[in-house]
Amino acid sequence: MPTRIPQEERTRQMRRRLLEATVDSLVELGWSGTTTTVVSQRAGVSRGAQLHHFPTKHDLVVAAVEFITERRRSQMDAVLADLPVEGRTRAVLEALSAQFISPVFFAALELWVAARTDESLRAEVDDLERRIGRETHAHAVTLLGIDESRGRNRQLVQATLDLVRGLGLAATLSDDSMRRTAILDAWAITLDHELER
Amino acid sequence: MPTRIPQEERTRQMRRRLLEATVDSLVELGWSGTTTTVVSQRAGVSRGAQLHHFPTKHDLVVAAVEFITERRRSQMDAVLADLPVEGRTRAVLEALSAQFISPVFFAALELWVAARTDESLRAEVDDLERRIGRETHAHAVTLLGIDESRGRNRQLVQATLDLVRGLGLAATLSDDSMRRTAILDAWAITLDHELER
Repeated sequence: MPTRIPQEERTRQMRRRLLEATVDSLVELGWSGTTTTVVSQRAGVSRGAQLHHFPTKHDLVVAAVEFITERRRSQMDAVLADLPVEGRTRAVLEALSAQFISPVFFAALELWVAARTDESLRAEVDDLERRIGRETHAHAVTLLGIDESRGRNRQLVQATLDLVRGLGLAATLSDDSMRRTAILDAWAITLDHELER
Repeated sequence: MPTRIPQEERTRQMRRRLLEATVDSLVELGWSGTTTTVVSQRAGVSRGAQLHHFPTKHDLVVAAVEFITERRRSQMDAVLADLPVEGRTRAVLEALSAQFISPVFFAALELWVAARTDESLRAEVDDLERRIGRETHAHAVTLLGIDESRGRNRQLVQATLDLVRGLGLAATLSDDSMRRTAILDAWAITLDHELER
Protein backbone atom coordinates (compact mmCIF):
# COMPACT_ATOMS: atom_id res chain seq x y z
CA MET A 1 0.00 0.00 0.00
CA PRO A 2 1.59 3.34 -1.05
CA THR A 3 2.10 5.95 1.65
CA ARG A 4 -0.49 8.70 1.28
CA ILE A 5 0.36 12.25 2.21
CA PRO A 6 -2.60 13.56 4.16
CA GLN A 7 -4.47 16.49 2.59
CA GLU A 8 -3.51 18.81 5.41
CA GLU A 9 0.19 18.13 4.87
CA ARG A 10 -0.12 18.63 1.11
CA THR A 11 -1.80 21.99 1.69
CA ARG A 12 0.95 22.99 4.07
CA GLN A 13 3.65 22.09 1.53
CA MET A 14 1.88 24.02 -1.23
CA ARG A 15 1.59 27.11 0.93
CA ARG A 16 5.26 26.87 1.76
CA ARG A 17 6.22 26.58 -1.91
CA LEU A 18 4.14 29.67 -2.70
CA LEU A 19 5.71 31.69 0.11
CA GLU A 20 9.25 30.63 -0.79
CA ALA A 21 8.63 31.51 -4.44
CA THR A 22 7.32 34.92 -3.36
CA VAL A 23 10.45 35.64 -1.34
CA ASP A 24 12.71 34.51 -4.21
CA SER A 25 10.79 36.68 -6.63
CA LEU A 26 11.02 39.75 -4.37
CA VAL A 27 14.76 39.22 -4.00
CA GLU A 28 15.40 38.71 -7.73
CA LEU A 29 12.78 40.86 -9.42
CA GLY A 30 11.83 43.41 -6.78
CA TRP A 31 8.36 44.64 -5.88
CA SER A 32 7.10 45.56 -9.33
CA GLY A 33 8.45 42.38 -10.95
CA THR A 34 6.68 40.20 -8.38
CA THR A 35 3.24 39.29 -9.72
CA THR A 36 0.86 36.52 -8.66
CA THR A 37 1.42 34.92 -12.10
CA VAL A 38 5.19 34.84 -11.67
CA VAL A 39 4.82 33.33 -8.20
CA SER A 40 2.39 30.56 -9.19
CA GLN A 41 4.66 29.60 -12.10
CA ARG A 42 7.77 29.53 -9.90
CA ALA A 43 5.99 27.52 -7.21
CA GLY A 44 4.45 25.09 -9.69
CA VAL A 45 1.02 25.73 -8.19
CA SER A 46 -2.14 26.27 -10.24
CA ARG A 47 -3.58 29.78 -10.39
CA GLY A 48 -6.81 28.50 -8.87
CA ALA A 49 -5.13 26.92 -5.87
CA GLN A 50 -2.99 29.99 -5.35
CA LEU A 51 -5.92 32.38 -5.46
CA HIS A 52 -7.75 30.15 -3.00
CA HIS A 53 -4.99 30.51 -0.43
CA PHE A 54 -3.82 34.04 -1.21
CA PRO A 55 -6.42 36.06 -3.13
CA THR A 56 -4.17 39.11 -3.74
CA LYS A 57 -0.52 40.04 -4.17
CA HIS A 58 -0.71 41.84 -0.84
CA ASP A 59 -1.89 38.71 0.99
CA LEU A 60 0.89 36.70 -0.59
CA VAL A 61 3.68 39.16 0.13
CA VAL A 62 2.72 39.91 3.73
CA ALA A 63 2.39 36.19 4.47
CA ALA A 64 5.75 35.55 2.81
CA VAL A 65 7.57 38.12 4.92
CA GLU A 66 5.91 36.76 8.04
CA PHE A 67 6.92 33.23 7.04
CA ILE A 68 10.59 34.06 6.51
CA THR A 69 10.63 35.96 9.77
CA GLU A 70 9.51 32.83 11.61
CA ARG A 71 12.31 30.91 9.96
CA ARG A 72 14.81 33.62 10.89
CA ARG A 73 13.69 33.28 14.49
CA SER A 74 14.62 29.61 14.65
CA GLN A 75 18.01 30.45 13.15
CA MET A 76 18.51 32.92 16.00
CA ASP A 77 17.73 30.23 18.55
CA ALA A 78 20.50 28.13 17.02
CA VAL A 79 22.91 31.08 17.40
CA LEU A 80 22.02 31.43 21.06
CA ALA A 81 23.05 27.86 21.76
CA ASP A 82 26.44 28.44 20.13
CA LEU A 83 27.67 31.74 21.58
CA PRO A 84 31.30 31.86 22.71
CA VAL A 85 32.14 33.09 26.21
CA GLU A 86 35.10 35.15 24.97
CA GLY A 87 34.02 37.85 22.50
CA ARG A 88 30.35 37.23 23.09
CA THR A 89 29.30 40.80 22.20
CA ARG A 90 31.09 40.71 18.85
CA ALA A 91 29.54 37.31 18.07
CA VAL A 92 26.07 38.65 18.88
CA LEU A 93 26.64 41.63 16.57
CA GLU A 94 27.70 39.25 13.81
CA ALA A 95 24.53 37.20 14.23
CA LEU A 96 22.25 40.27 14.32
CA SER A 97 23.99 41.88 11.37
CA ALA A 98 23.75 38.66 9.33
CA GLN A 99 19.96 38.94 9.50
CA PHE A 100 20.09 42.27 7.70
CA ILE A 101 22.46 41.36 4.90
CA SER A 102 20.44 38.33 3.85
CA PRO A 103 17.92 37.79 1.05
CA VAL A 104 15.30 37.77 3.82
CA PHE A 105 16.03 41.43 4.56
CA PHE A 106 16.10 42.33 0.87
CA ALA A 107 12.63 40.81 0.43
CA ALA A 108 11.31 42.61 3.51
CA LEU A 109 12.83 45.87 2.24
CA GLU A 110 10.89 45.59 -1.03
CA LEU A 111 7.68 45.17 0.93
CA TRP A 112 8.57 47.97 3.31
CA VAL A 113 9.36 50.53 0.62
CA ALA A 114 6.28 49.60 -1.42
CA ALA A 115 4.14 50.08 1.70
CA ARG A 116 5.35 53.66 2.15
CA THR A 117 3.33 54.83 -0.85
CA ASP A 118 0.52 52.23 -0.68
CA GLU A 119 -2.09 53.09 1.93
CA SER A 120 -3.78 49.67 1.90
CA LEU A 121 -0.53 47.80 2.41
CA ARG A 122 0.86 50.20 4.97
CA ALA A 123 -1.22 49.39 8.05
CA GLU A 124 -0.55 45.69 7.65
CA VAL A 125 3.18 46.07 7.09
CA ASP A 126 3.49 48.60 9.91
CA ASP A 127 1.87 46.09 12.25
CA LEU A 128 4.13 43.26 11.06
CA GLU A 129 7.26 45.39 11.38
CA ARG A 130 6.39 46.44 14.92
CA ARG A 131 5.95 42.80 15.88
CA ILE A 132 9.22 41.77 14.25
CA GLY A 133 10.93 44.78 15.84
CA ARG A 134 9.80 43.82 19.35
CA GLU A 135 10.84 40.20 18.87
CA THR A 136 14.25 41.10 17.47
CA HIS A 137 14.79 43.49 20.35
CA ALA A 138 13.92 40.82 22.93
CA HIS A 139 16.22 38.38 21.15
CA ALA A 140 19.11 40.86 21.17
CA VAL A 141 18.67 41.45 24.91
CA THR A 142 18.77 37.69 25.55
CA LEU A 143 21.78 37.18 23.29
CA LEU A 144 23.72 39.99 24.99
CA GLY A 145 22.75 38.61 28.38
CA ILE A 146 21.89 42.00 29.86
CA ASP A 147 19.20 43.50 32.08
CA GLU A 148 17.64 46.17 29.92
CA SER A 149 16.22 48.14 32.83
CA ARG A 150 19.77 49.21 33.81
CA GLY A 151 21.40 52.46 32.67
CA ARG A 152 21.18 53.17 28.93
CA ASN A 153 21.03 49.45 28.08
CA ARG A 154 17.63 49.62 26.43
CA GLN A 155 18.57 52.52 24.13
CA LEU A 156 21.93 50.94 23.29
CA VAL A 157 20.18 47.76 22.14
CA GLN A 158 17.77 49.82 20.03
CA ALA A 159 20.68 51.78 18.57
CA THR A 160 22.42 48.48 17.77
CA LEU A 161 19.39 47.25 15.85
CA ASP A 162 19.08 50.52 13.93
CA LEU A 163 22.79 50.31 13.17
CA VAL A 164 22.57 46.80 11.70
CA ARG A 165 19.48 47.88 9.73
CA GLY A 166 21.47 50.79 8.31
CA LEU A 167 24.35 48.46 7.47
CA GLY A 168 21.88 46.11 5.77
CA LEU A 169 20.57 48.92 3.60
CA ALA A 170 24.13 49.86 2.58
CA ALA A 171 24.79 46.21 1.68
CA THR A 172 21.91 46.07 -0.82
CA LEU A 173 23.94 47.91 -3.46
CA SER A 174 27.49 46.73 -2.98
CA ASP A 175 29.49 44.28 -0.93
CA ASP A 176 30.94 46.45 1.79
CA SER A 177 31.82 43.63 4.18
CA MET A 178 35.27 45.04 5.08
CA ARG A 179 33.76 48.35 6.13
CA ARG A 180 31.03 46.50 8.05
CA THR A 181 33.55 44.33 9.92
CA ALA A 182 35.52 47.37 11.10
CA ILE A 183 32.34 49.13 12.26
CA LEU A 184 31.07 46.09 14.16
CA ASP A 185 34.50 45.60 15.80
CA ALA A 186 34.39 49.19 17.09
CA TRP A 187 30.72 48.88 18.09
CA ALA A 188 31.44 45.72 20.14
CA ILE A 189 34.17 47.51 22.11
CA THR A 190 31.82 50.46 22.64
CA LEU A 191 29.00 48.23 23.90
CA ASP A 192 31.35 46.41 26.28
CA HIS A 193 32.35 49.79 27.74
CA GLU A 194 28.89 51.29 27.88
CA LEU A 195 26.43 48.49 28.67
CA GLU A 196 25.77 48.07 32.38
CA ARG A 197 26.20 44.44 33.37
CA MET B 1 11.59 97.69 -22.28
CA PRO B 2 10.54 94.44 -20.53
CA THR B 3 13.24 92.56 -18.67
CA ARG B 4 14.24 89.50 -20.66
CA ILE B 5 15.33 86.34 -18.88
CA PRO B 6 18.42 85.06 -20.70
CA GLN B 7 18.05 81.68 -22.39
CA GLU B 8 20.62 80.09 -20.10
CA GLU B 9 18.68 81.12 -17.00
CA ARG B 10 15.38 79.84 -18.44
CA THR B 11 17.00 76.47 -19.16
CA ARG B 12 18.35 76.32 -15.63
CA GLN B 13 14.90 77.04 -14.18
CA MET B 14 13.25 74.42 -16.35
CA ARG B 15 15.78 71.78 -15.34
CA ARG B 16 15.20 72.64 -11.69
CA ARG B 17 11.41 72.36 -12.09
CA LEU B 18 11.86 68.92 -13.69
CA LEU B 19 14.17 67.70 -10.92
CA GLU B 20 11.91 69.01 -8.14
CA ALA B 21 8.89 67.37 -9.78
CA THR B 22 10.82 64.10 -9.98
CA VAL B 23 11.66 64.19 -6.27
CA ASP B 24 8.04 65.04 -5.36
CA SER B 25 6.79 62.21 -7.52
CA LEU B 26 9.22 59.68 -5.97
CA VAL B 27 8.12 60.75 -2.49
CA GLU B 28 4.39 60.62 -3.24
CA LEU B 29 4.05 57.86 -5.82
CA GLY B 30 7.18 55.77 -5.33
CA TRP B 31 9.41 54.29 -8.00
CA SER B 32 6.80 52.56 -10.14
CA GLY B 33 4.41 55.54 -10.04
CA THR B 34 7.13 57.90 -11.24
CA THR B 35 7.01 58.09 -15.03
CA THR B 36 8.46 60.67 -17.39
CA THR B 37 4.88 61.65 -18.33
CA VAL B 38 3.90 62.29 -14.71
CA VAL B 39 7.04 64.37 -14.19
CA SER B 40 6.62 66.56 -17.30
CA GLN B 41 2.99 67.25 -16.33
CA ARG B 42 3.90 68.16 -12.75
CA ALA B 43 6.75 70.37 -13.87
CA GLY B 44 4.68 72.06 -16.59
CA VAL B 45 7.39 71.27 -19.12
CA SER B 46 6.69 69.96 -22.64
CA ARG B 47 7.56 66.33 -23.35
CA GLY B 48 9.94 67.44 -26.08
CA ALA B 49 11.89 69.79 -23.83
CA GLN B 50 12.02 67.18 -21.09
CA LEU B 51 13.30 64.45 -23.39
CA HIS B 52 15.94 66.85 -24.69
CA HIS B 53 17.36 67.35 -21.18
CA PHE B 54 16.69 63.91 -19.72
CA PRO B 55 16.13 61.25 -22.37
CA THR B 56 15.15 58.46 -19.91
CA LYS B 57 13.57 57.94 -16.51
CA HIS B 58 16.98 56.80 -15.24
CA ASP B 59 18.65 60.05 -16.32
CA LEU B 60 15.92 62.05 -14.64
CA VAL B 61 15.92 60.16 -11.37
CA VAL B 62 19.69 59.99 -10.91
CA ALA B 63 19.99 63.73 -11.68
CA ALA B 64 17.16 64.47 -9.24
CA VAL B 65 18.79 62.60 -6.37
CA GLU B 66 22.08 64.33 -7.13
CA PHE B 67 20.32 67.71 -7.20
CA ILE B 68 18.63 67.26 -3.81
CA THR B 69 21.88 66.02 -2.34
CA GLU B 70 23.56 69.28 -3.35
CA ARG B 71 20.77 71.20 -1.68
CA ARG B 72 21.09 69.06 1.45
CA ARG B 73 24.79 69.94 1.56
CA SER B 74 24.10 73.67 1.75
CA GLN B 75 21.61 73.02 4.56
CA MET B 76 24.39 71.21 6.44
CA ASP B 77 26.66 74.23 6.05
CA ALA B 78 23.96 76.33 7.71
CA VAL B 79 23.85 73.85 10.61
CA LEU B 80 27.60 74.10 11.06
CA ALA B 81 27.38 77.86 11.58
CA ASP B 82 24.73 77.41 14.28
CA LEU B 83 26.09 74.64 16.53
CA PRO B 84 25.84 75.22 20.27
CA VAL B 85 28.94 74.82 22.45
CA GLU B 86 26.99 72.96 25.16
CA GLY B 87 25.45 69.73 23.87
CA ARG B 88 27.24 69.94 20.55
CA THR B 89 27.28 66.15 19.98
CA ARG B 90 23.53 65.86 20.49
CA ALA B 91 22.92 68.79 18.14
CA VAL B 92 25.10 67.16 15.47
CA LEU B 93 23.17 63.89 15.81
CA GLU B 94 19.91 65.81 15.40
CA ALA B 95 21.18 67.47 12.23
CA LEU B 96 22.50 64.22 10.74
CA SER B 97 19.36 62.31 11.67
CA ALA B 98 17.12 65.01 10.16
CA GLN B 99 18.70 64.30 6.76
CA PHE B 100 17.43 60.72 6.91
CA ILE B 101 13.87 61.38 8.00
CA SER B 102 13.24 63.86 5.20
CA PRO B 103 11.46 63.53 1.84
CA VAL B 104 14.97 63.74 0.35
CA PHE B 105 15.87 60.43 1.96
CA PHE B 106 12.56 58.84 0.97
CA ALA B 107 13.20 59.79 -2.67
CA ALA B 108 16.76 58.44 -2.52
CA LEU B 109 15.47 55.23 -0.92
CA GLU B 110 13.11 54.61 -3.85
CA LEU B 111 16.02 54.97 -6.25
CA TRP B 112 18.27 52.83 -4.10
CA VAL B 113 15.84 49.93 -3.78
CA ALA B 114 14.94 50.04 -7.47
CA ALA B 115 18.66 49.88 -8.32
CA ARG B 116 19.10 46.64 -6.38
CA THR B 117 17.21 44.68 -9.03
CA ASP B 118 18.03 46.88 -12.05
CA GLU B 119 21.52 46.21 -13.42
CA SER B 120 21.65 49.30 -15.65
CA LEU B 121 20.69 51.64 -12.82
CA ARG B 122 22.88 49.98 -10.24
CA ALA B 123 26.36 51.08 -11.28
CA GLU B 124 25.26 54.70 -11.51
CA VAL B 125 23.44 54.70 -8.17
CA ASP B 126 26.28 52.85 -6.47
CA ASP B 127 28.68 55.52 -7.66
CA LEU B 128 26.39 58.34 -6.51
CA GLU B 129 25.85 56.73 -3.11
CA ARG B 130 29.59 56.29 -2.55
CA ARG B 131 30.14 59.94 -3.33
CA ILE B 132 27.31 61.06 -1.03
CA GLY B 133 28.56 58.69 1.66
CA ARG B 134 32.09 60.14 1.58
CA GLU B 135 30.78 63.70 1.70
CA THR B 136 28.38 63.00 4.55
CA HIS B 137 31.18 61.29 6.47
CA ALA B 138 33.50 64.29 6.01
CA HIS B 139 30.68 66.60 7.09
CA ALA B 140 30.01 64.57 10.23
CA VAL B 141 33.71 64.67 11.18
CA THR B 142 33.75 68.46 10.77
CA LEU B 143 30.51 68.91 12.71
CA LEU B 144 31.76 66.76 15.59
CA GLY B 145 35.05 68.65 15.56
CA ILE B 146 37.19 65.51 15.89
CA ASP B 147 40.41 64.12 14.45
CA GLU B 148 39.35 60.90 12.79
CA SER B 149 42.80 59.37 12.85
CA ARG B 150 42.57 58.98 16.64
CA GLY B 151 41.36 55.83 18.41
CA ARG B 152 38.12 54.39 17.07
CA ASN B 153 36.85 57.80 15.94
CA ARG B 154 36.59 56.87 12.28
CA GLN B 155 34.51 53.73 12.93
CA LEU B 156 32.34 55.55 15.46
CA VAL B 157 31.47 58.19 12.85
CA GLN B 158 30.70 55.47 10.29
CA ALA B 159 28.54 53.66 12.84
CA THR B 160 26.73 56.90 13.62
CA LEU B 161 25.86 57.37 9.94
CA ASP B 162 24.66 53.78 9.62
CA LEU B 163 22.61 54.28 12.77
CA VAL B 164 20.84 57.38 11.43
CA ARG B 165 20.27 55.60 8.12
CA GLY B 166 18.62 52.74 10.01
CA LEU B 167 16.51 55.22 11.96
CA GLY B 168 15.51 56.86 8.69
CA LEU B 169 14.37 53.55 7.26
CA ALA B 170 12.26 52.90 10.37
CA ALA B 171 10.70 56.37 10.00
CA THR B 172 9.42 55.66 6.49
CA LEU B 173 6.48 53.65 7.80
CA SER B 174 5.48 55.32 11.03
CA ASP B 175 6.34 58.37 13.09
CA ASP B 176 8.63 56.96 15.76
CA SER B 177 10.13 60.27 16.82
CA MET B 178 9.91 59.55 20.56
CA ARG B 179 11.86 56.33 20.15
CA ARG B 180 14.38 58.12 17.94
CA THR B 181 14.89 60.93 20.46
CA ALA B 182 15.66 58.47 23.27
CA ILE B 183 18.13 56.57 21.08
CA LEU B 184 19.94 59.73 19.96
CA ASP B 185 20.10 61.00 23.57
CA ALA B 186 21.78 57.76 24.64
CA TRP B 187 24.06 57.74 21.60
CA ALA B 188 25.25 61.30 22.24
CA ILE B 189 26.32 60.33 25.77
CA THR B 190 28.05 57.25 24.38
CA LEU B 191 29.93 59.23 21.72
CA ASP B 192 31.06 61.79 24.29
CA HIS B 193 32.51 58.92 26.36
CA GLU B 194 34.05 57.02 23.47
CA LEU B 195 35.32 59.58 20.95
CA GLU B 196 38.92 60.61 21.49
CA ARG B 197 39.19 64.39 21.53
